[in-house]
Amino acid sequence: MRVVQKYGGTSVGSTELIRRVAARVHALRDAGHQVAVVVSAMGDSTDRLLDLAREITAEPDTRELDALLATGEQVSTALLAIALRERGCPAKSYAGFQLPIRTTDVHGRARIESIDGARLEADLAAGIVPIVAGFQGLDPHGDVTTIGRGGSDTTAVAVAVALQADECQILTDVDGVYTTDPRMVPDARRLDRLTFDEMLELAGQGSRVLHLRSVEFASKYGVRLRVLSSFRPDGPGTLITSEEKDVEAPVVSGIAFHRDEAEIVVRGVPDAPGVAYGLLEPVSRAHVEVDMIVANAPRDGRVDFAFTVHRDDHRRALDLVRAAATALGAQAVEGDATVAKLSVVGVGMRSHAGVATRLFAALAAEQIAVRLISTSEIKISVLVDEQALERAVRAVHTAFGLAEPRTG
Amino acid sequence: MRVVQKYGGTSVGSTELIRRVAARVHALRDAGHQVAVVVSAMGDSTDRLLDLAREITAEPDTRELDALLATGEQVSTALLAIALRERGCPAKSYAGFQLPIRTTDVHGRARIESIDGARLEADLAAGIVPIVAGFQGLDPHGDVTTIGRGGSDTTAVAVAVALQADECQILTDVDGVYTTDPRMVPDARRLDRLTFDEMLELAGQGSRVLHLRSVEFASKYGVRLRVLSSFRPDGPGTLITSEEKDVEAPVVSGIAFHRDEAEIVVRGVPDAPGVAYGLLEPVSRAHVEVDMIVANAPRDGRVDFAFTVHRDDHRRALDLVRAAATALGAQAVEGDATVAKLSVVGVGMRSHAGVATRLFAALAAEQIAVRLISTSEIKISVLVDEQALERAVRAVHTAFGLAEPRTG
Repeated sequence: MRVVQKYGGTSVGSTELIRRVAARVHALRDAGHQVAVVVSAMGDSTDRLLDLAREITAEPDTRELDALLATGEQVSTALLAIALRERGCPAKSYAGFQLPIRTTDVHGRARIESIDGARLEADLAAGIVPIVAGFQGLDPHGDVTTIGRGGSDTTAVAVAVALQADECQILTDVDGVYTTDPRMVPDARRLDRLTFDEMLELAGQGSRVLHLRSVEFASKYGVRLRVLSSFRPDGPGTLITSEEKDVEAPVVSGIAFHRDEAEIVVRGVPDAPGVAYGLLEPVSRAHVEVDMIVANAPRDGRVDFAFTVHRDDHRRALDLVRAAATALGAQAVEGDATVAKLSVVGVGMRSHAGVATRLFAALAAEQIAVRLISTSEIKISVLVDEQALERAVRAVHTAFGLAEPRTG
Repeated sequence: MRVVQKYGGTSVGSTELIRRVAARVHALRDAGHQVAVVVSAMGDSTDRLLDLAREITAEPDTRELDALLATGEQVSTALLAIALRERGCPAKSYAGFQLPIRTTDVHGRARIESIDGARLEADLAAGIVPIVAGFQGLDPHGDVTTIGRGGSDTTAVAVAVALQADECQILTDVDGVYTTDPRMVPDARRLDRLTFDEMLELAGQGSRVLHLRSVEFASKYGVRLRVLSSFRPDGPGTLITSEEKDVEAPVVSGIAFHRDEAEIVVRGVPDAPGVAYGLLEPVSRAHVEVDMIVANAPRDGRVDFAFTVHRDDHRRALDLVRAAATALGAQAVEGDATVAKLSVVGVGMRSHAGVATRLFAALAAEQIAVRLISTSEIKISVLVDEQALERAVRAVHTAFGLAEPRTG
């Protein structure tokens, strides 16, 4: 089998842990598999590099910040290669520029465009374990880029695509994807398998297990993704594929949530073609990601828009929207940075009515007010007051029968 | 004027110091000069990276060690660029692979073969300060190399050559080149200027001010080199050029010394063509640098060879020489790792007899035994017992009248 394994920062947080990863990779290779590895930077080293830059200025130049941060993965890949070679397992580290991993030139948020797999193929054919630096790439100008936090997952999937690997394994500090965050709901249950669509909604909505873009990438290219615990790598973990589960599968797979939301509401915009574009374009041009977007039906020729952004971007987005809203003749702009989002996710939802009803009943029983509602094929999201989030998640998790069956 | 400035690890040892370097570079550029900068890794960061590798194994793979160590300079270049941009001075960092700086593929001891100056020229033309990572390059296989300790000086000279710079300034923690090490001889005097040949002998023989290869490079391409204190960058420092000084100049410019020497003596090798080659080839093939090489006239068809290596390489070199000596029918191989070398250097020496006489007289007066003697056009070196080195340097420094003139 040809496998790409990705180890996160906590898995390579010290030279002792790096040696353990080396032992695991070595064993997999000696069992007859072709293994390529993608690693993140050691533990908190990315944060330490960021601190150095911030000692100089609050807003470091983004090209230079990328050059700085990319060194974190170069360190961990080299150390893992050293540890593998020390064990007698041939290995070679590769920085993004060496393959290269080609990306767009948006520093800090670049997108992978292609990976040249030639050096990796040559290594695998020669029994060498190639170790690729996650999170980084090279832009068309020959400059180093990074692809955003958690981007090493995406690098791993992109490497799996380039190598047509049989499986892309994400080794992390949890042993799979759960029905919701077990830290919040103790009887949350590990899911054996999920579809990409479900995982996409769970990842995008705040499940921290996998980076959103990595799931999109895997879905687009049909890469089998498996989430495994780096402490129990033999466990089944959670397999994520494009195949839908059988009809007996539960309607709802999991409950995702996201705390760091902020809401922006634009009241009474004169209804005209291009109004939504006019409000959102400045925000998107500033590379602020917009999450939920809700618009009511127009009334008296005016319409209300509401959308959410990450809390860190709230002030910036609010300024941009205020300017745009004024220009468009809106009546008011309101913002609230103390909201959170809860989403119910499941492919089974498509063919079942009543999911929304059950969701709203559970929230009503807890006296939790719903602020915004947005739905997709396999998801219903609601915005609630941040303080009510924990109660809401527990109530909804129970209402959909997701809890671990009690033993005895 | 077009200037290349090189700042060493102590000059960029913290973000505060990096900000100071930025202020200095900014001022130089605002005074109308075109400035390119080469930097070393911050303070002891190279040693810290080396420690990480050594936590895993005593002998890390050299390709991987280079990939690891090169990150040190990538961090300092990015931080300096961030600091310059923060001041409003346009700047761009470049890792070795980005220009690229092409080197041979001997990891850990690569040699710079060429630097593509295109991106640097474009930056200078646009008023941007390019900041180049010292110490590193890219080999023909596309792998990262390092060019050995102190190699950032060599990078600086190579950049100066690529840019046809008017001057290459090495900013360091001393304010110039001295007649000998002021820590050993308190009345040592700063030299206003030196020739490359003299500097080559002084650097090669243990003056820690400049890396040997940087002076060779500068000499070969006629780059004006200036050593300046990074704490007193306006001081004249020491200018090193190819021009010889006037006839009035002193015969001897300085006294160099090197503590970490080790001696290997091969006794009674049957004299035949190729014998010296047979002894030294295995040592050179193992990339051990041989320094002094002395051979007496043959006696009874046999000859004695003696040479010196760095003390760290002594055991390895001794093993290689023993094997070769046995094969060649030598009578004995002896080694001594507690020797030191003292050299008297000066272009004036060429035309003056009596330098050797004065040197031996000074040593004899101190009862210091001379073990090996080797001479070149502008240098006489002797090997002495390590314990006698300090007394020897002081006595010879005084004997050649190099001391700072007493005031008053």
